[in-house]
Amino acid sequence: MAGSTFGNLFRVHTFGESHGAALGAVIDGCPAGLPLCEEDIQKYLDRRKPGQNKLSTPRKEDDRAKILSGVFEGKTTGTPIAVVVENTSQRSADYSEIAVSYRPGHADYTFDAKYGFRDYRGGGRSSGRETIARVIGGAVAAKILESLGISVYAYTQSIGPVSIDAERFDKDQILQNPCNMPDKEAAVAAENYLKECMENKDSSGGVVACIMEGLPAGIGEPVFDKLDALLAQAVMSVGAVKAVEIGDGMAVAKATGSQNNDSFASDPGDAGRIRKLTNHSGGTLGGISDGSNVILRAAIKPTPSIFRPQNTVNDKGEDITLTIKGRHDPVIVPRAVVVIECMCAITAADLLLSNLSSRMEYLTAIYKR
Amino acid sequence: MAGSTFGNLFRVHTFGESHGAALGAVIDGCPAGLPLCEEDIQKYLDRRKPGQNKLSTPRKEDDRAKILSGVFEGKTTGTPIAVVVENTSQRSADYSEIAVSYRPGHADYTFDAKYGFRDYRGGGRSSGRETIARVIGGAVAAKILESLGISVYAYTQSIGPVSIDAERFDKDQILQNPCNMPDKEAAVAAENYLKECMENKDSSGGVVACIMEGLPAGIGEPVFDKLDALLAQAVMSVGAVKAVEIGDGMAVAKATGSQNNDSFASDPGDAGRIRKLTNHSGGTLGGISDGSNVILRAAIKPTPSIFRPQNTVNDKGEDITLTIKGRHDPVIVPRAVVVIECMCAITAADLLLSNLSSRMEYLTAIYKR
Amino acid sequence: MAGSTFGNLFRVHTFGESHGAALGAVIDGCPAGLPLCEEDIQKYLDRRKPGQNKLSTPRKEDDRAKILSGVFEGKTTGTPIAVVVENTSQRSADYSEIAVSYRPGHADYTFDAKYGFRDYRGGGRSSGRETIARVIGGAVAAKILESLGISVYAYTQSIGPVSIDAERFDKDQILQNPCNMPDKEAAVAAENYLKECMENKDSSGGVVACIMEGLPAGIGEPVFDKLDALLAQAVMSVGAVKAVEIGDGMAVAKATGSQNNDSFASDPGDAGRIRKLTNHSGGTLGGISDGSNVILRAAIKPTPSIFRPQNTVNDKGEDITLTIKGRHDPVIVPRAVVVIECMCAITAADLLLSNLSSRMEYLTAIYKR
Amino acid sequence: MAGSTFGNLFRVHTFGESHGAALGAVIDGCPAGLPLCEEDIQKYLDRRKPGQNKLSTPRKEDDRAKILSGVFEGKTTGTPIAVVVENTSQRSADYSEIAVSYRPGHADYTFDAKYGFRDYRGGGRSSGRETIARVIGGAVAAKILESLGISVYAYTQSIGPVSIDAERFDKDQILQNPCNMPDKEAAVAAENYLKECMENKDSSGGVVACIMEGLPAGIGEPVFDKLDALLAQAVMSVGAVKAVEIGDGMAVAKATGSQNNDSFASDPGDAGRIRKLTNHSGGTLGGISDGSNVILRAAIKPTPSIFRPQNTVNDKGEDITLTIKGRHDPVIVPRAVVVIECMCAITAADLLLSNLSSRMEYLTAIYKR
Repeated sequence: MAGSTFGNLFRVHTFGESHGAALGAVIDGCPAGLPLCEEDIQKYLDRRKPGQNKLSTPRKEDDRAKILSGVFEGKTTGTPIAVVVENTSQRSADYSEIAVSYRPGHADYTFDAKYGFRDYRGGGRSSGRETIARVIGGAVAAKILESLGISVYAYTQSIGPVSIDAERFDKDQILQNPCNMPDKEAAVAAENYLKECMENKDSSGGVVACIMEGLPAGIGEPVFDKLDALLAQAVMSVGAVKAVEIGDGMAVAKATGSQNNDSFASDPGDAGRIRKLTNHSGGTLGGISDGSNVILRAAIKPTPSIFRPQNTVNDKGEDITLTIKGRHDPVIVPRAVVVIECMCAITAADLLLSNLSSRMEYLTAIYKR
Repeated sequence: MAGSTFGNLFRVHTFGESHGAALGAVIDGCPAGLPLCEEDIQKYLDRRKPGQNKLSTPRKEDDRAKILSGVFEGKTTGTPIAVVVENTSQRSADYSEIAVSYRPGHADYTFDAKYGFRDYRGGGRSSGRETIARVIGGAVAAKILESLGISVYAYTQSIGPVSIDAERFDKDQILQNPCNMPDKEAAVAAENYLKECMENKDSSGGVVACIMEGLPAGIGEPVFDKLDALLAQAVMSVGAVKAVEIGDGMAVAKATGSQNNDSFASDPGDAGRIRKLTNHSGGTLGGISDGSNVILRAAIKPTPSIFRPQNTVNDKGEDITLTIKGRHDPVIVPRAVVVIECMCAITAADLLLSNLSSRMEYLTAIYKR
Repeated sequence: MAGSTFGNLFRVHTFGESHGAALGAVIDGCPAGLPLCEEDIQKYLDRRKPGQNKLSTPRKEDDRAKILSGVFEGKTTGTPIAVVVENTSQRSADYSEIAVSYRPGHADYTFDAKYGFRDYRGGGRSSGRETIARVIGGAVAAKILESLGISVYAYTQSIGPVSIDAERFDKDQILQNPCNMPDKEAAVAAENYLKECMENKDSSGGVVACIMEGLPAGIGEPVFDKLDALLAQAVMSVGAVKAVEIGDGMAVAKATGSQNNDSFASDPGDAGRIRKLTNHSGGTLGGISDGSNVILRAAIKPTPSIFRPQNTVNDKGEDITLTIKGRHDPVIVPRAVVVIECMCAITAADLLLSNLSSRMEYLTAIYKR
Repeated sequence: MAGSTFGNLFRVHTFGESHGAALGAVIDGCPAGLPLCEEDIQKYLDRRKPGQNKLSTPRKEDDRAKILSGVFEGKTTGTPIAVVVENTSQRSADYSEIAVSYRPGHADYTFDAKYGFRDYRGGGRSSGRETIARVIGGAVAAKILESLGISVYAYTQSIGPVSIDAERFDKDQILQNPCNMPDKEAAVAAENYLKECMENKDSSGGVVACIMEGLPAGIGEPVFDKLDALLAQAVMSVGAVKAVEIGDGMAVAKATGSQNNDSFASDPGDAGRIRKLTNHSGGTLGGISDGSNVILRAAIKPTPSIFRPQNTVNDKGEDITLTIKGRHDPVIVPRAVVVIECMCAITAADLLLSNLSSRMEYLTAIYKR
């Protein structure tokens, strides 16, 4: 069954392999009348582009977004928005070894187990280049959110043992360092740690955090399409993510109710409005947004492509030793930041559309004008 | 948009409120020819039933499953299987306070924000009784899995500060103690901790683990409907779950690639077969099952209903102090065990059906016989 | 894959067999705040109930609707509305012959071919009693439409050779005669024709028409979820329907463009509003409602259960002669009227919800208040 | 809600406007291992290409299919197959009149009513060029069917008053004449009729028939996703289709049960196999294929673009007289033939995949090998 589509109303259909002709997305269900141009998408793609600094693979791809449909005179028309990014720098590498070997930590074996064979060039469909389509969808979703006063931003919270310090948190720093950390000092420490990893022919994991501000209360659908449940699917579906936390996340397991409950309080500045005094819940209650910030974290595993010889098997089931060639990022985390931000934006946009059906008074407001 | 359905091919449609006439599920897409009777479902429902021991709410509900359709002469017919559980012991409690107050940690406020009003009796749709429908679906899914040699089981890994000890792991213990822990000693310690919590008018969180054994390699759909992504949605959608981990989970963030990669190796006992020497990945690679055990953990928040006075607001936005009455479990974890097990079973059954479409040779095998 | 659900946003999940414990529907996605009670549903069910007159099967079923969930204090809550109708008068008939024979014109053979066996009691899932679930869904959909000033009504246009006369059209007659014809004289002629059919141990086909008034322009989703396309699926899915026409239907094949095009004109009574001078298109252009009446017709095949001996085979593939026993309606058409009306109502309600996502200005209208 | 996707398991996502950069489709859910190349798709596209003869618009488009993903070494990989067709000959016509006028019989008005504005260049999304995406999907579906021994073919049954003669039926003729009629003589008569229409500045409707041979019994999902119901949606969604008939279609309304029932009989050449002696039902019973040919007909309205002055309104609601310029086909029918054939192929391929989930024994056959 398919599997390459995310969203119920704001639907992002994705396609493309690492070394095929192109990757892209078709966004169906974007409301008409949203201002949109290629540059809106390009600036998100540029954030995930390889070769931007010493931490990321030097594959030189322009990754230029081209809109094929769904936009007319600068605005979305309500019809599908197809966006493609051509693969321009696929080197005709020698894939003879990788074609018959199962790299540890990669999907080579499972794709073969599923489909009987695989497009082995650069990982094919399971390559990180697949996330281009997620970023295209997220860029459009973010435009919708922005027009409603909602902002989503992600950042690197930790790389290996190096975590950001809450007291030094500086949102403006996020795009200023190769680690995408909102903490200048931590970013330097993380870079040093990564250099060590590279010297050891090793790689590092880390944590990405994502914050959504301004989401109105009431978003998310009980029982299975809860805001947190769909965020979990969205983010866990990103390659290398092994855990998703909402609010206090794993820490709730050791908390007591009196510690974990967030008290509601009146809003002194806005009579009748309700706020929470704390936000352990991370912005959702019963899977529905409660008007406070939505807070999500994802654990990213270390890059599986390391340059040490590794024990593995070939496609005949024979034991071999594999030494991966080429060059690979020592950490996935910084480039995952924009991807996770985009998946959260898509999820929120989709649920905002869903919620339009939640009350008879909304129908009346639209149809009885 | 809907939201009460889980699954693409094996679809579980759910309904019901805590104090309505009945709760239940309609399972559409269950293959024909599966032996099924009410007892198959009942034994799962009995595991989540309240009033079984001193740790769970004394609400006395029989929670009897009644199959209304889709089964004929002891086998599923391929048509929808409707199963209902009547609510028999709703006390006509006094809801006048709760109807106008927003309990901290509950969905009272968010339901009002979404729908404009709510069925406030016992939490309505956001009640833990909603999980009856999940258990019904899971019981049927487990029958499918079982017939293919796949087993799924969940257990309590920790309650507050008390964790099970891997060396004392005894699967047979899981259903033998009120904490559903596979470790007798830890179960006693956890009970003692919970008594303390109750004396403090407080509650505790914990962790549920779920293991799937025997799932063949190749299950899960790239890109968004990955096995781990759908498990994350399935489990995060359970009330009170705040984090989902696959394999090493959050710990991968601090690991290096050489620590985290699982080596493949030939299987000495079975030429041509492939095994992994470790299982940090928790049974998935690229979101597709790799033939090793699928390992998932979920963090469960402490029961939000505690008996201390709590600061909150009423539906007019005025500050009030609320003291919750009635009796409530000091911990959600043990009763969540069967629910999480069921959500994992549903997810696996659904993806096993999806995978039937993955290869032309499967079509040929079925249609050219 | 499932198959028992209709609708994308207003979803009707159906279940039940002719001789099982109950039939019913779970409606997920109905907006909150719609006034709804069992009587709203019952009055639609009463229109399809058997045993109402000499043209319909004398099986005495009360067909009482019971709402299990989703309604609180007389209004929908936004959560799934489960409605069941118990089967009360299943006679423990002798099914030994029908269990092994394939009745011509019935689904006995195709269910066996699909599932390997079938619930043969009274047709099981393929029985006309399945339409109870459609009527439940339609009754709720009609309440939504009504609240927006949209009305849907269906009637019998012809039975065998007897058609209604446009000049005698009287909407009030529809529910006044057993044929559900809006033409008293035609109804008498049709009844006489049906008596003849019964004397000949035969049965008759006919045509049902359905009109939707007040649907605003702009409803329907290009390309595949067009209003006319989803109406076609909805209505063709009703057992015994063999053709669906929109507007002039089959007649367009012989028309010329100058005959078939509907001219637009200004509306003298309402400046800026647009009307069509004719309605050959039946209320849709490009699959989107154009503000004029939606007009649909469905051809219904003759009841396949006739009392003549028929040549057929048994489940071993041996030729046999089968004489169907029991009593069966000589015509399906009048009882199909409410079913087709309900399918049209469901389709319209679903697309009205879909359309809420069509424009950014609708999001702004709802979220920026 | 979206609307540009058809199919549940074999999903065809479509995009593109008449005068945008490109049109195309992303096919998700195609099983791995199907031999596929661009030429497989091109030969279907060539059948719908404009400018092939004097009956079709002289717009010169190469309509070259380019596969962007999902195929590796000549076989499908199981991942999404993206195919694009660039628009190469969009003339920068003068759209100033059409931009503000509502052409009778076109979707100009309804798109404006839905979205608030429209891409008016050449009809935008509502252009007949949209069917390119359907043909791409159908070409791939037909390859699947072919590999299972199933063939689908469509043809023109009538144009205006000219119908094919069953006695002269010659399948090989279909692609030999501009009318796509399987009857040489009728094709000549139809061409003459169309010349007349053109001289009268008028256009003609007609009927397309489609036959599916070799579909095994058991395909189609009760209740709503019946084979005939999904075919009805698939075909009614094609622009200009106003009616869909299965088997005897509208004629069943005047038939009696004894005329309309198809007798089953043993198959003298194949013991245990079952055949039908007639095929009034058009290959489905209870919405499930019965092993005989599936027969469908669609009525196509006359081309709405005629060259006579027509009364209509502009987008301010003012009455105007519009004379359509450019050149337009006097009949849509011949070019609709391949489109309808493709929609039927997609529907059948999708339901064949669905049916793999219908029986436990199929799961066992695949997973217990």
